Amino acid sequence: MDEALPLWSAFFFGESRIAQMSDETRLRAAILGASGYTGAETVRLLADHPRVEVRAATGHALAGKALSDIFPHLAGPSDLAVVRPDDVDWSQIDVVFGCLPHGTSQDVIETLPGHIKVIDLSADYRLSSPGIYESTYGRAHAAPARLQTRIYGLPEWPQNELEGSELVACPGCYPTASLLALLPLVGAVIDRDHIIIDAKSGVSGAGRGLKEGNLFSEAAEGTHAYGIGTHRHAPEIDQELNRVVGRDDIAVTFTPHLLPMVRGELVTCHVRGDADQIHAALTNQYHTAPFVTVLPLGSPSPDTRHVRGTNHCRIGVWPDRVPGRSIVIAVIDNLIKGSSGQAIQNLNRVMGWDETLGLGRLQPLFP
Amino acid sequence: MDEALPLWSAFFFGESRIAQMSDETRLRAAILGASGYTGAETVRLLADHPRVEVRAATGHALAGKALSDIFPHLAGPSDLAVVRPDDVDWSQIDVVFGCLPHGTSQDVIETLPGHIKVIDLSADYRLSSPGIYESTYGRAHAAPARLQTRIYGLPEWPQNELEGSELVACPGCYPTASLLALLPLVGAVIDRDHIIIDAKSGVSGAGRGLKEGNLFSEAAEGTHAYGIGTHRHAPEIDQELNRVVGRDDIAVTFTPHLLPMVRGELVTCHVRGDADQIHAALTNQYHTAPFVTVLPLGSPSPDTRHVRGTNHCRIGVWPDRVPGRSIVIAVIDNLIKGSSGQAIQNLNRVMGWDETLGLGRLQPLFP
Amino acid sequence: MDEALPLWSAFFFGESRIAQMSDETRLRAAILGASGYTGAETVRLLADHPRVEVRAATGHALAGKALSDIFPHLAGPSDLAVVRPDDVDWSQIDVVFGCLPHGTSQDVIETLPGHIKVIDLSADYRLSSPGIYESTYGRAHAAPARLQTRIYGLPEWPQNELEGSELVACPGCYPTASLLALLPLVGAVIDRDHIIIDAKSGVSGAGRGLKEGNLFSEAAEGTHAYGIGTHRHAPEIDQELNRVVGRDDIAVTFTPHLLPMVRGELVTCHVRGDADQIHAALTNQYHTAPFVTVLPLGSPSPDTRHVRGTNHCRIGVWPDRVPGRSIVIAVIDNLIKGSSGQAIQNLNRVMGWDETLGLGRLQPLFP
Amino acid sequence: MDEALPLWSAFFFGESRIAQMSDETRLRAAILGASGYTGAETVRLLADHPRVEVRAATGHALAGKALSDIFPHLAGPSDLAVVRPDDVDWSQIDVVFGCLPHGTSQDVIETLPGHIKVIDLSADYRLSSPGIYESTYGRAHAAPARLQTRIYGLPEWPQNELEGSELVACPGCYPTASLLALLPLVGAVIDRDHIIIDAKSGVSGAGRGLKEGNLFSEAAEGTHAYGIGTHRHAPEIDQELNRVVGRDDIAVTFTPHLLPMVRGELVTCHVRGDADQIHAALTNQYHTAPFVTVLPLGSPSPDTRHVRGTNHCRIGVWPDRVPGRSIVIAVIDNLIKGSSGQAIQNLNRVMGWDETLGLGRLQPLFP
Repeated sequence: MDEALPLWSAFFFGESRIAQMSDETRLRAAILGASGYTGAETVRLLADHPRVEVRAATGHALAGKALSDIFPHLAGPSDLAVVRPDDVDWSQIDVVFGCLPHGTSQDVIETLPGHIKVIDLSADYRLSSPGIYESTYGRAHAAPARLQTRIYGLPEWPQNELEGSELVACPGCYPTASLLALLPLVGAVIDRDHIIIDAKSGVSGAGRGLKEGNLFSEAAEGTHAYGIGTHRHAPEIDQELNRVVGRDDIAVTFTPHLLPMVRGELVTCHVRGDADQIHAALTNQYHTAPFVTVLPLGSPSPDTRHVRGTNHCRIGVWPDRVPGRSIVIAVIDNLIKGSSGQAIQNLNRVMGWDETLGLGRLQPLFP
Repeated sequence: MDEALPLWSAFFFGESRIAQMSDETRLRAAILGASGYTGAETVRLLADHPRVEVRAATGHALAGKALSDIFPHLAGPSDLAVVRPDDVDWSQIDVVFGCLPHGTSQDVIETLPGHIKVIDLSADYRLSSPGIYESTYGRAHAAPARLQTRIYGLPEWPQNELEGSELVACPGCYPTASLLALLPLVGAVIDRDHIIIDAKSGVSGAGRGLKEGNLFSEAAEGTHAYGIGTHRHAPEIDQELNRVVGRDDIAVTFTPHLLPMVRGELVTCHVRGDADQIHAALTNQYHTAPFVTVLPLGSPSPDTRHVRGTNHCRIGVWPDRVPGRSIVIAVIDNLIKGSSGQAIQNLNRVMGWDETLGLGRLQPLFP
Repeated sequence: MDEALPLWSAFFFGESRIAQMSDETRLRAAILGASGYTGAETVRLLADHPRVEVRAATGHALAGKALSDIFPHLAGPSDLAVVRPDDVDWSQIDVVFGCLPHGTSQDVIETLPGHIKVIDLSADYRLSSPGIYESTYGRAHAAPARLQTRIYGLPEWPQNELEGSELVACPGCYPTASLLALLPLVGAVIDRDHIIIDAKSGVSGAGRGLKEGNLFSEAAEGTHAYGIGTHRHAPEIDQELNRVVGRDDIAVTFTPHLLPMVRGELVTCHVRGDADQIHAALTNQYHTAPFVTVLPLGSPSPDTRHVRGTNHCRIGVWPDRVPGRSIVIAVIDNLIKGSSGQAIQNLNRVMGWDETLGLGRLQPLFP
Repeated sequence: MDEALPLWSAFFFGESRIAQMSDETRLRAAILGASGYTGAETVRLLADHPRVEVRAATGHALAGKALSDIFPHLAGPSDLAVVRPDDVDWSQIDVVFGCLPHGTSQDVIETLPGHIKVIDLSADYRLSSPGIYESTYGRAHAAPARLQTRIYGLPEWPQNELEGSELVACPGCYPTASLLALLPLVGAVIDRDHIIIDAKSGVSGAGRGLKEGNLFSEAAEGTHAYGIGTHRHAPEIDQELNRVVGRDDIAVTFTPHLLPMVRGELVTCHVRGDADQIHAALTNQYHTAPFVTVLPLGSPSPDTRHVRGTNHCRIGVWPDRVPGRSIVIAVIDNLIKGSSGQAIQNLNRVMGWDETLGLGRLQPLFP
């Protein structure tokens, strides 16, 4: 059982099992931007991954600090120190998880040596069109050619390309939930011209940046929408919906809301189509997917609490009271399936490993 | 200044100003069902009403208790005891606020003496059709004839009928927010066949009933939808939208979600129509309404925190990224504008008083 | 009734009643530091004060903005713009509410013209000893002489000095609750050498400053202590306990905890003394105090929810299971009785007005 | 790696690895009272235990339902149905986890066949004195003789007796945190006559019982104390403190508070003693304990967020500002180390296994 015993247990048990594992069997990872939530979550999850070892965690403002001073929940005897990217010996790194803000992310990633595989969690490589990137994110992309070769990493959607890929762009949290719900439907089952996504997210989706609106006193006990008609995840959703059906005319209504909870994301998709057909299409698509559960027709709504702390997505379907309309609801943990967990799932696919490695044991923390 | 000094101040200041006010100048009210949230909130708000005095609070299971033992926040020297309806001297009561569950409400209200005006906060008199009442609430109505004569009390919608009415049915919380947003639009500004209401409510909207799903441990830190395609407020919204335009074919999609917050309700209306025209119609409708504010175009989303503790509704309008679609968002405090506050506003209108009496001083509690 | 109608109603009702009130009858106030929570709360509460009118709100970083752009819950047609202190015509101001951080507060206050009365909510004038101020706050006081003449404004404690005072230092939130519970006891009823205060506060007590620990994602769903053995409010509590009994040897243990709630503060005082005597002393002290309620022996614990949104303090007393020990618990709303409400109460006392003006109508927002 | 792959992964991955494990290598467990939080949490945690298999889950009101209908977060293809205790074939069960309310627990446990080991999470076997049990819990114990033979299962406190024990009484959540902090100190390091425990707990500690005070609307956004001077966990703490030092005169002050969070418990121990000596005693006691971390002197307060979802306890020590006093703070997840996790740790010790089995991989869910 030694091989399966995770790094994390070594943190807490004061034993060093790492030495027992030869480097050959474990991929050496660096986390770019370890001082944010997605960086910390990636470190946390990788501690239980049997074939990856985190060797470096980078940061600017907090360089020199122990990661456990920033995030005490990551404390342990084998703890990492945050270093500047320039201080990493990249020859000793096999894979990078990019957890930087968009813009910054491409600037660092484009300077990495060619042997390093990149799993990027930022928005920088999600959009395949340099023009749409620029209009959406307000700057020209530093490496527009890479947008053609990177793989958009939604691992549930049949993507044989993932294996061996050099650069994977992990979907945004909202696109993850929305696309898992809609991709199997957009080909034939629902009306492409009537897709309305009403989305709800916990506050951790806004990251660790310091804004008044994210303070407890202003984010608790209330709700509001934001980015109405303009959110950056909408073009990303359009892109993928169009791609799978070979079109360019699908445009969704996407309206996100901020909810007073830390983790969790729920998307309510108001569509036109038959609930039975929708349910059949989803079930058919995901019946072998380890991380997606399609609830039986007639179930209660999926609940973000039932996926909290896991890499799972749960999807439900209901006929509307208005004939011809249906409601499809998907829930995820925005920091795991919507971010760090999916990144690890993508790495597993890139490496040709079982895609559940390091993720299969996560259980929903309820209540 | 004596006249304006509210009853509530007497509670806390240890002085009895009540004796200084002759009964002639104050309406004598009874609260039916004072042990629930809407009952308690009605008592609380009426304590600051210059022309109403609460004389009786009824309950069954808790009869005999002081109201302040049930709700310590209502404590004061003039405190009320909860009594059974049979123990009230109805000849000394001018108006009743019905805060009972639906079903029970009609059973009590139909036995009251004819001189008593009724402001009913339950669902029992909202639907004008006995058939739709029965199919929606699962029982035949005890007084179907009253459904023709009662007034549906959404006071912002021009209703000259309110003055002098004997029985007012206060709208449900979701219909209140939804109708305030949509009633001015359904005539000409938006497409009646494409109305989707995605609604979000705090947990107090579920009342004080004991269910696992309303426990803190199960309602905190997550969200889910409920009543998808079947919620009882949908026929009520249909009814009023149809009524104002003299049709019977409007049917809305209505999908409510439970949010981890106590108070607050936000409805996101996905409609087809021009945002400028929608904004103009709403502004035109409400520019003199004391409790409805239409935000300027380009504003951030209305926030439930900015109406918490008040009788206000705030409405915003945005063009969608998909041409021809718009998003209209309304927020209220579900226990005040969505329930007890609106009930008092309705009484004010029934009596021909300034509709802000007892409500105008409420300020949003933020943060 | 016109006189009693508050400014706030004018905000929301679109009517300007301000013009009907001559300036002679209303004190003209300026808020220093209106962009923080105590500043905003002071503006909010004064809107319902019949004898004070807010004429200016100052700020630095946000100067030029409408106050309602910063705090939409303060919106209204008579809205204030934030201005720099230099841009205020101080000759038109009668009283200033100092809502600035400590350090900054004294720097501004000491430059104000002499005719202006000052109610300071910061920590700058609370400690009467310049030496203790310096050791506690890490800088020499700019006006040490003023520390001798300012009045420490805990209005419930017999302070005939408040009337006519030029400079009132409002107590900190923790000292407010702690001193209301302990001041009547320290003379004879409890053992002065065994006072342990275990305090709990909502996050709004930390103000609007941007720190990771105050983000929703890090302040929700958990608790921790802080300032253990070193919190700045401890010397302030010592000072007042010693002052009322003419000693200098009282030193309390004070351990605050941050709780995942916005408003509310509860102090649990572990003392040695007889619960009956303690209860009698508290009851005797506060039986005429409009804002302090001593609960009957045997009551459930006071609850912050029952004072939320009000200027009230509720105190309860229990005998411990260990003979000779008792527990005294006090709750307040930290932003009202612990800050802005008490400041207004102090102004009322300074002016010789009824101390409940502008505060008496506030009711607990429950649930 | 197959052996290490947990049962839980089989739930979610649609594969049945259970068949690959012979029954000989796995203990067969039944959960008594699976419809409460501790029952559900025990099921959840055991799904990742390599040497235990849950074979039965009992309940009364919910018998016949699938466990995943009650707790969807436990869903999976190998799902359990809830059965009445009478319907369990006890000959196929090796160990029982008692998750019933006190009173009920003893009534069921005393009827079990003698070959079954019992890990009881209720209060029924915690107190060794039948008299104190009766005065504390209001009924005579059904099996007073068992109170002499059961083992009080706080596994960190040297207890060679645990191995082979037939009946383990798991400590209450408050005693767990309090005793971990105080047991190493009470012998010599602190004054036994001055122990004050001010405790704070999340709402899940109150269980799944339906009471108004546990509703989200009444438990959110505020705090209060309860059981002041009378809480049932105080005699339990006294018992163990006295036991380890062979005395009978230690009596603690214990004052619990309910906090608006789901999970987490923090105890603040106000003691007399030297912080350095206290820290040394704790460090010495726990330096090899896998689940207890003593923070370095000078650390920030332990935070319940940093142990949420784990079986860990974190303890910190501070000198007070009053010479001779110190503050010791311990945090746990009340449902894991305070309940189900500790129960499993106890089973591991009973069986002579590594005490971290099934618990070592749990990581703190932050944020």
